[in-house]
Amino acid sequence: MANETRTSVTVLGLGPMGQALAGAFLKAGHPTTVWNRTPAKADALVAQGAALANTVVEAVAASPLVIICVLDYNAVNAILAPAGDTLKGRTLVNLTADTPERAREMAAWAAAQGFDYLDGAIMTPMPTIGHPTAVILYSGPEAVYEANRPALASLGGTASHLGTDPGRAAAYDVALLDIFWTSMSGYIHALALARAENIAAKDLAVYAQGIVHIMPNIMTEFARQVDDGHYPGEKSNIVSAAAGMEHIIHAAKARGIDASVLSAAHAVARRAIDAGQGADAFSRLAELYGKPSA
Amino acid sequence: MANETRTSVTVLGLGPMGQALAGAFLKAGHPTTVWNRTPAKADALVAQGAALANTVVEAVAASPLVIICVLDYNAVNAILAPAGDTLKGRTLVNLTADTPERAREMAAWAAAQGFDYLDGAIMTPMPTIGHPTAVILYSGPEAVYEANRPALASLGGTASHLGTDPGRAAAYDVALLDIFWTSMSGYIHALALARAENIAAKDLAVYAQGIVHIMPNIMTEFARQVDDGHYPGEKSNIVSAAAGMEHIIHAAKARGIDASVLSAAHAVARRAIDAGQGADAFSRLAELYGKPSA
Ligand SMILES: NC(=O)c1ccc[n+]([C@@H]2O[C@H](COP(=O)([O-])OP(=O)(O)OC[C@H]3O[C@@H](n4cnc5c(N)ncnc54)[C@H](OP(=O)(O)O)[C@@H]3O)[C@@H](O)[C@H]2O)c1
Ligand SMILES: NC(=O)c1ccc[n+]([C@@H]2O[C@H](COP(=O)([O-])OP(=O)(O)OC[C@H]3O[C@@H](n4cnc5c(N)ncnc54)[C@H](OP(=O)(O)O)[C@@H]3O)[C@@H](O)[C@H]2O)c1
Repeated sequence: MANETRTSVTVLGLGPMGQALAGAFLKAGHPTTVWNRTPAKADALVAQGAALANTVVEAVAASPLVIICVLDYNAVNAILAPAGDTLKGRTLVNLTADTPERAREMAAWAAAQGFDYLDGAIMTPMPTIGHPTAVILYSGPEAVYEANRPALASLGGTASHLGTDPGRAAAYDVALLDIFWTSMSGYIHALALARAENIAAKDLAVYAQGIVHIMPNIMTEFARQVDDGHYPGEKSNIVSAAAGMEHIIHAAKARGIDASVLSAAHAVARRAIDAGQGADAFSRLAELYGKPSA
Repeated sequence: MANETRTSVTVLGLGPMGQALAGAFLKAGHPTTVWNRTPAKADALVAQGAALANTVVEAVAASPLVIICVLDYNAVNAILAPAGDTLKGRTLVNLTADTPERAREMAAWAAAQGFDYLDGAIMTPMPTIGHPTAVILYSGPEAVYEANRPALASLGGTASHLGTDPGRAAAYDVALLDIFWTSMSGYIHALALARAENIAAKDLAVYAQGIVHIMPNIMTEFARQVDDGHYPGEKSNIVSAAAGMEHIIHAAKARGIDASVLSAAHAVARRAIDAGQGADAFSRLAELYGKPSA
C-alpha cells in the first residue's frame, strides 16, 4: 500500500459516490480528509482512517487535491462559496454530473480564483469505483490532468482525458446519461407491462439481456448513418418502428399503464413519417430530435 | 442440404424480415412458396428457387406450414381474410409483432376456422435470421410447436416456447420492444445532443457501448427489487436520477433540441419524489408506471 508517499486528498460530498471515492483513496494509501453536509455519513470512512473536517475551508486546506462529488452544481456552488480563497494554488476535480455550460462556468471561476480545475464524469455505478471496471472521463488543462493522474488512478478502471475544453467531459456525460436514463426508464416501464401479463421481472430480465446484447451493433450502424447523413432503410425502417411502438402503447394503455415516454418517442417517429421519411432507417430521427418540436 | 424430405413452407409478406425468413427456408432446403402485396419484392427469392404465388389463397394452398410476417395484425387480417377456408387443416405461424390481445383474437379465429396456430415474436434484427444469433419466441399449443419445430429450426438461433397462452410471446415481445425502442430513442437523441457539442456519432458510440455494458447487472438488480417489492436506495436513488435527467433536459433545451422523451421520464421520477419515495432505488418507478398519470 503506502510504501511511497501518496498525495493527500480531500473528498467533499459523501453520498454513495463520494463515499466510494474516499474509500478508494484510503485503500490506495492516500491520507484522506472528508467533509459532508451531513457529517454522520463519514463514520465508516473515519473508521477506515479518514480525517473528518469540521468545515469546508478546513477540508480544502488539508490537501493539494480536492475532489467534489455531490448532487449537482447548485450544491457544488453552495459548498465551495466560502472556500474560494482557500482553493487558491490547489487542484479541484469536480466529479459531479451537470451540463457542459456549468462545467465551463466553474472553470472560469477557478481561473479567476487562481486554482487548477478538472471537470470529470463517472460513467459506471458506484460499486465499480476502485475496481478495473470503473470508467471516468476528464477534461481541462492537459498539464493539470497529467500531474494528478497518479492520484486519480486510485479510483480504478479506465480514465480518459477528452481534451482541454472543461465542458467536454460533461458533454459526453449528458449524452451518455441520456442513453442510460432513457433506457432504464424503458426497462422499468417494460417490467410494469410484463407484470400486468403476470410475467415476473426476473423472467423478463433474462430476455432483456438479449435485447441489450443486440444493441452495440445497431448503435455502431446508426452512428455511421448519422455521421454520413445517409439512412438506408432496407433492413428496418421508421414506419415499421412506429408500428412497433404503437403496439406497445396500445398494450400499455389497455392495462392502465402510463405510456407517456414511448408516446413522446412515437410522436417524433410520426413527424418523420409525415415528412415523408418513413422508409428511411430509424437513425434519421437524430435530425428531428436536433430540432425542437413545433 | 435437402438430403431428406423437407416440409413445404409458404411465407406471406416479403418486407425485410419476410425476405430473410423465406431465404432461410430456401437455404435449409424447404420447397418455399412466397407471396407479397407488392410482388416485385419476391424477385431475389424466385432467383434462389422460391415459387411466387399469384394470390394468397394459392400461396396458402401450396404448403402445410404457412408463415406470415408483415407490418401489423391489421395487415395480417387484410391478407388472410380470403384464405380462412384454405387454412383449414394447416398450421399458421404468425411472426408479426403486435399486442397479446390481438394474438389471442387470432388464435380464437384459428380455432373457429379449424387450423393450428402459433404466435411468434422475432427478438433479433433481420440479418440474424438463419444464423446462430437469431432469437425467436413462440406460444400456442405444445403439440403444434413440437410438430413444426424441425422446420422452424431453419430460421436459426434459439427458439423458445413460452407456453400455451397464444398471447404469451406477444406479451414478452411488447415488453422487450419497449426496452428496445425506448433505448434506441434515447440513443438517437444522445447522438443529436452530442452533435450539438461537435462530438461525432462514432466517437460517442464508443462510450455508448460502455453504457450498454453496465446495463445487464443493473437490470438484474432492478428486476430483483421489483419482484421483491423492496427498493433500497443506498447505491443510487431517485432524487439523484432526477437531478441527472434535469441536466440532460437543460442541456438539450439550451441547444434547441427536443427533450420530450426524457421530460416524460423525468415527470414520472418527480411524481415518486413528490410521493416521498426520492430516497428509494429507481426501480420503484415500476409501481408508478403501473398506474396511469392523473
Ligand atoms: N451513485 C452512482 O452510482 C453514481 C454513478 C455515476 C455518477 N454518479 C454521480 O455522482 C454524483 C453524486 O451522486 P451520489 O450517488 O453520491 O448521490 P447524490 O444523491 O447525487 O448526492 C448526494 C450528495 O450530495 C450532497 N448534497 C445534495 N444537496 C446538497 C446541498 N444543497 N448542499 C450540500 N450538499 C448537498 C449530499 O449531502 P447530504 O449527505 O448532506 O445530503 C451528498 O453528499 C452525482 O452527480 C451522480 O450523478 C453517481
Ligand atoms: N426488420 C427487422 O429487423 C425486424 C426485427 C424483428 C422483428 N421484426 C418484425 O417483423 C415484422 C415485419 O417487419 P419488416 O422489417 O419485414 O417490415 P415492415 O415494414 O414491418 O413490414 C413490411 C411488410 O408488410 C406488408 N404490408 C404492410 N401493410 C400491408 C397491408 N395493409 N396489406 C398487405 N401487406 C402489408 C408489406 O407489403 P408491401 O411490400 O406490399 O408493402 C411488407 O410485406 C414486423 O412485425 C416487425 O416488427 C422486424
